[in-house]
Amino acid sequence: MSTEMARFTRRIPAGEDRERLTCDECGFVAYENPKIVVGSVVVEQGRVLLCRRAIEPRRGFWTIPAGYMELGETVQEGALREAREEACAALALDGILAVYSIARIGQVQVMFRARLLHPEAEPAFAAGPESLEVRLFGWEEIPWAELAFPSVHWVLEAWRAVGDGPLGAPQGNPPADRRGVQPLAGA
Amino acid sequence: MSTEMARFTRRIPAGEDRERLTCDECGFVAYENPKIVVGSVVVEQGRVLLCRRAIEPRRGFWTIPAGYMELGETVQEGALREAREEACAALALDGILAVYSIARIGQVQVMFRARLLHPEAEPAFAAGPESLEVRLFGWEEIPWAELAFPSVHWVLEAWRAVGDGPLGAPQGNPPADRRGVQPLAGA
Ligand SMILES: [Zn+2]
Ligand SMILES: [Zn+2]
Repeated sequence: MSTEMARFTRRIPAGEDRERLTCDECGFVAYENPKIVVGSVVVEQGRVLLCRRAIEPRRGFWTIPAGYMELGETVQEGALREAREEACAALALDGILAVYSIARIGQVQVMFRARLLHPEAEPAFAAGPESLEVRLFGWEEIPWAELAFPSVHWVLEAWRAVGDGPLGAPQGNPPADRRGVQPLAGA
Repeated sequence: MSTEMARFTRRIPAGEDRERLTCDECGFVAYENPKIVVGSVVVEQGRVLLCRRAIEPRRGFWTIPAGYMELGETVQEGALREAREEACAALALDGILAVYSIARIGQVQVMFRARLLHPEAEPAFAAGPESLEVRLFGWEEIPWAELAFPSVHWVLEAWRAVGDGPLGAPQGNPPADRRGVQPLAGA
């Protein structure tokens, strides 16, 4: 196979007990593992930082700064990098606010509560190449109907519950979607 | 390439900015992501459950029930599965005790505090195929010099700090190894 033409099919390789993604041409088994998303609820004077996505999926919808963790970094470094890339923002991380599992798509999401490291900077944040717009929203201003993913809704509620107070054990998935298997509403 | 003969080399694919593991024969790019380990500090009447490893790496050394999360499960389901496989134990999870990054090997470890679901069962636990032995240890009995991995030491200290009390924000890496890059002592 060539890099461009790779075609993979789900088959059970010899000696295994479950289906794996296997190259049709050469039999290479692409072991799939859950992927880690790292993100931050960035709070500045009671308002929260949201980014309007410039890329698919969910272009035009609002999300917190978050993305796939890279090899060789820590969860904290990944969260800081994503905020830099998507919102041109330097953060100070408070700690882990929530850990979600999205079993439907094989994701674990580690969400931090954070603050702007230089809120007085001009500008303190700006749209990176993956964002159309970056803004602070008070609780009543949050565009609930235009959030990109269910977990953005979940983590904003988790922040609402804890506020500026001490972080407890991380929130998990809400009772209505314990495994993260509900399809994306409206997508 | 055949499944058995796959040979991968680190090269920078066209249009990318970093090295990726690439098949020497057909150019397939195996994107590498951090892997998630899920595990539990299982506490029974002040004692902690440890498993002596029957497999490499670190065969013969002690660890908590933990292992790689599989696609399609939640972090909680993964931690329960590992305790079933390694210690034949059914658990009740309290919550997340610690989240560690081991940047050296691209791991994120999500560690729960847990209890035996049926402590009165005979037996309540037993060595699974990947364990030579499973035992409960009081704090003073823990075989510190024979622990399999640094993070086993870290998570036992994290449990010691919180005890049976309410879980706070998860512990992270200790100051001496903030990024998880220290080589394994004695291995
Ligand atoms: Zn191939
Ligand atoms: Zn190949």
